[in-house]
Amino acid sequence: MTTRLLLNCDMGERLGHWPMGRDEEVMPWIDCANVACGFHASDPVTLRKTVALAARHGVQVGAHPGYPDLVGFGRRSLACTPNEVEQMVLYQMGAVYAACRAESIGLSYVKPHGALNHDMMRNPDVLEAIMAAVAAFDPELPLMVTSVSDRSATERLSRQYGITVWNEVFADRAYDAEGHLVSRQTPGAVHQDRDTIVAQAVAFANGTPILAHDGKTELTLLADTLCVHGDNEESIAAVQAVHAALKGGSP
Amino acid sequence: MTTRLLLNCDMGERLGHWPMGRDEEVMPWIDCANVACGFHASDPVTLRKTVALAARHGVQVGAHPGYPDLVGFGRRSLACTPNEVEQMVLYQMGAVYAACRAESIGLSYVKPHGALNHDMMRNPDVLEAIMAAVAAFDPELPLMVTSVSDRSATERLSRQYGITVWNEVFADRAYDAEGHLVSRQTPGAVHQDRDTIVAQAVAFANGTPILAHDGKTELTLLADTLCVHGDNEESIAAVQAVHAALKGGSP
Amino acid sequence: MTTRLLLNCDMGERLGHWPMGRDEEVMPWIDCANVACGFHASDPVTLRKTVALAARHGVQVGAHPGYPDLVGFGRRSLACTPNEVEQMVLYQMGAVYAACRAESIGLSYVKPHGALNHDMMRNPDVLEAIMAAVAAFDPELPLMVTSVSDRSATERLSRQYGITVWNEVFADRAYDAEGHLVSRQTPGAVHQDRDTIVAQAVAFANGTPILAHDGKTELTLLADTLCVHGDNEESIAAVQAVHAALKGGSP
Amino acid sequence: MTTRLLLNCDMGERLGHWPMGRDEEVMPWIDCANVACGFHASDPVTLRKTVALAARHGVQVGAHPGYPDLVGFGRRSLACTPNEVEQMVLYQMGAVYAACRAESIGLSYVKPHGALNHDMMRNPDVLEAIMAAVAAFDPELPLMVTSVSDRSATERLSRQYGITVWNEVFADRAYDAEGHLVSRQTPGAVHQDRDTIVAQAVAFANGTPILAHDGKTELTLLADTLCVHGDNEESIAAVQAVHAALKGGSP
Repeated sequence: MTTRLLLNCDMGERLGHWPMGRDEEVMPWIDCANVACGFHASDPVTLRKTVALAARHGVQVGAHPGYPDLVGFGRRSLACTPNEVEQMVLYQMGAVYAACRAESIGLSYVKPHGALNHDMMRNPDVLEAIMAAVAAFDPELPLMVTSVSDRSATERLSRQYGITVWNEVFADRAYDAEGHLVSRQTPGAVHQDRDTIVAQAVAFANGTPILAHDGKTELTLLADTLCVHGDNEESIAAVQAVHAALKGGSP
Repeated sequence: MTTRLLLNCDMGERLGHWPMGRDEEVMPWIDCANVACGFHASDPVTLRKTVALAARHGVQVGAHPGYPDLVGFGRRSLACTPNEVEQMVLYQMGAVYAACRAESIGLSYVKPHGALNHDMMRNPDVLEAIMAAVAAFDPELPLMVTSVSDRSATERLSRQYGITVWNEVFADRAYDAEGHLVSRQTPGAVHQDRDTIVAQAVAFANGTPILAHDGKTELTLLADTLCVHGDNEESIAAVQAVHAALKGGSP
Repeated sequence: MTTRLLLNCDMGERLGHWPMGRDEEVMPWIDCANVACGFHASDPVTLRKTVALAARHGVQVGAHPGYPDLVGFGRRSLACTPNEVEQMVLYQMGAVYAACRAESIGLSYVKPHGALNHDMMRNPDVLEAIMAAVAAFDPELPLMVTSVSDRSATERLSRQYGITVWNEVFADRAYDAEGHLVSRQTPGAVHQDRDTIVAQAVAFANGTPILAHDGKTELTLLADTLCVHGDNEESIAAVQAVHAALKGGSP
Repeated sequence: MTTRLLLNCDMGERLGHWPMGRDEEVMPWIDCANVACGFHASDPVTLRKTVALAARHGVQVGAHPGYPDLVGFGRRSLACTPNEVEQMVLYQMGAVYAACRAESIGLSYVKPHGALNHDMMRNPDVLEAIMAAVAAFDPELPLMVTSVSDRSATERLSRQYGITVWNEVFADRAYDAEGHLVSRQTPGAVHQDRDTIVAQAVAFANGTPILAHDGKTELTLLADTLCVHGDNEESIAAVQAVHAALKGGSP
């Protein structure tokens, strides 16, 4: 089969001498690299190197802005005003854009990181601030948002700002009957079995329903892009298996 | 008289709640705003606000990148590799560019800040790294360098990278017979008298020689742009006087 | 009159080249200097200088720890775990302690800053984490908390950790009938009139009731220490007037 | 054999979510843990955890202060004034001291990190600033310095400040005939062979000469402490072999 479901992966999360992730190994299998911008991870040298790696593989580069919190890796919410959010996203987009321009490619999209992503999905003021930043830089850039059943806020604001959204789904996570990710604390929240992961990815790609965590609800979520991980050998093997199932080729 | 000598001033050097400089008061009198990029000063909100202010006044915006050192205000040299310098300059250019794009203006030039500027003028490897960053982003952007008598390194590298340089001079500083700024520790290094400052600015604008600190050597320096200051009332009054002398209008 | 009500003031909030506050002018009139620790403001040189100034004036030095957020000046809440809070407070106490030891004085107390203070008063887990840090360093150090009517959490935890609390009141702020500070957004929340400020300070010092913002409720709050400000001329004049009223001497 | 040669190792160099080093594995074999202080690596949670680990193993804790440069891991020199160096060392000592106090152990010594260590050995002003910091905090704390043939500056300043120095040697590095470490760029600069490493460690412990890199000069260096590494399996095996040779017990 072929699919338009884009595989996206967080990339460039090294900080100076501290490595993280296996960017070189996972880059060949993905469509979209969410490139850390120096606020929650990365530094100027890492950023440039990561964008260059993506360019060599023909992978689209997205800005992956986060809260300014290296110690917390951008996973701790910081109580910012909407204007602070807008400007910090714009700033980080610019930093990634510069590396793209130096590598003669374009910036392709924006995906907020960690707590900023989480806050965006709960607080329409944060979502609006992020959309304002994207629109101010380039309204043609899509914004990745988590695919949820209730898309009212996202659709209203995306119309208002003229921004395309890309709905992001997860193949290795269970969803509850309302279409939210089951908390990692709940047993069964994270799929370990590779066949289950591949099957869920294929369902998203085909637009067929997946079974919710309650074991009976059938759930259909909009799926423009699938989040994959390049942290370790196992997750890279999973990416390759998903890639093979969705795009063909041997895993 | 009218002149092409551009008045440039460091701007946007606030950090969060800590103010610095009188940007609103000096912006009407200058041609070029050297906008701090968040490494030695500034933050995303300040950066956007500063670029917006420049845009309102039709002032050209330059990226003013510095070493990553808020406590030292970018005035302490950091022993970086050329690649580190190149990428940190590129990163900061991108951040300012994003604010420019959001304000529908272009980024116009680059002027390194503080110790990075100083290192650029002493170490051709640093100069080359900065030129590489400018060229990678946009070779049409001029790079401001300190006007010196010996321009061999600058001219060689500017040809190699296809970068225009803007030679920067100072109206309120004494020069020695070799065309270097007299150290601030030396008596008479900084002109306090407004007439002296205006006269030196006019000489630079006309391309006529100035008298060196030894009181006898006549010195002619290339002068594309003149550095002015907006720190306090006195320096703003000096800017207005220079502006009146060079561009006409009442001081 | 003489009083045991201690005047405390935030100090040492400079950052490198960015000044803040008039420490030299207000230090002679206060009892307790809340010294910024480098996370929300200050740097090692400023910290040492501030502690030396306090030592010269015989003023007690307190650690004033905050969230690691220079751009937000520690006024933006950061979603930390209790362990993260405990260790960041302990770390900052150590930094101030070292400057005290170098100046041959002791560290006298701890007062959390900004959003960390705010979170401490709302979230018992944060309060407990801070008490754990104080107890781990030195259980004899008092912890300043905002004086509120409902002291149940504070009293339970202070017994558990063996920590003395100092209840802090404000002379320039209106209180609501429940004993909370009226939000700064509400008209009349901040007293501008110096006589009103002095009268409220005197009432706290005498343990007599103050009139709540509703104009009728009489409110008595525990008052061990009074927060004063050294930001500008007016606030310093207010400190002097309060000092004169409470401790005698001419304002 | 038994020896007084202390094995020291850099520890606690994690930053938030970025791991570094195998502290748990190497801690049982060393005498002295050089604990990163949050400027070039570490964070408050890591610092406390590292000190607790050292305390459990009865390992002495030293403050390991560095330049404020996470991206460069403290390996890039920052042009600071002596006062800036003094206060940044004092600050970092305080942070480690607080964790020690919370774990009911003392702070035992100070060893500057990376570029700060390097600058200390080349620039007597930096050495003096560091000694001033140690003396201000506690003149009984030894300062680790690199063992060199010319100890004139170190001895003069250690007398002046009343500071004990511990001379540090390396078992896995070649020395030139003047007693300086051979640059890592030179072939043969780093010993890979475990027997060579152990033999050099034993020579230092016994005070017998080692053979310089020129293959003929016999070199005797003062050796109070030996630097070992816990980065990877191989270096930990080397630590164990050195430990067995010096202190007995099976490797």
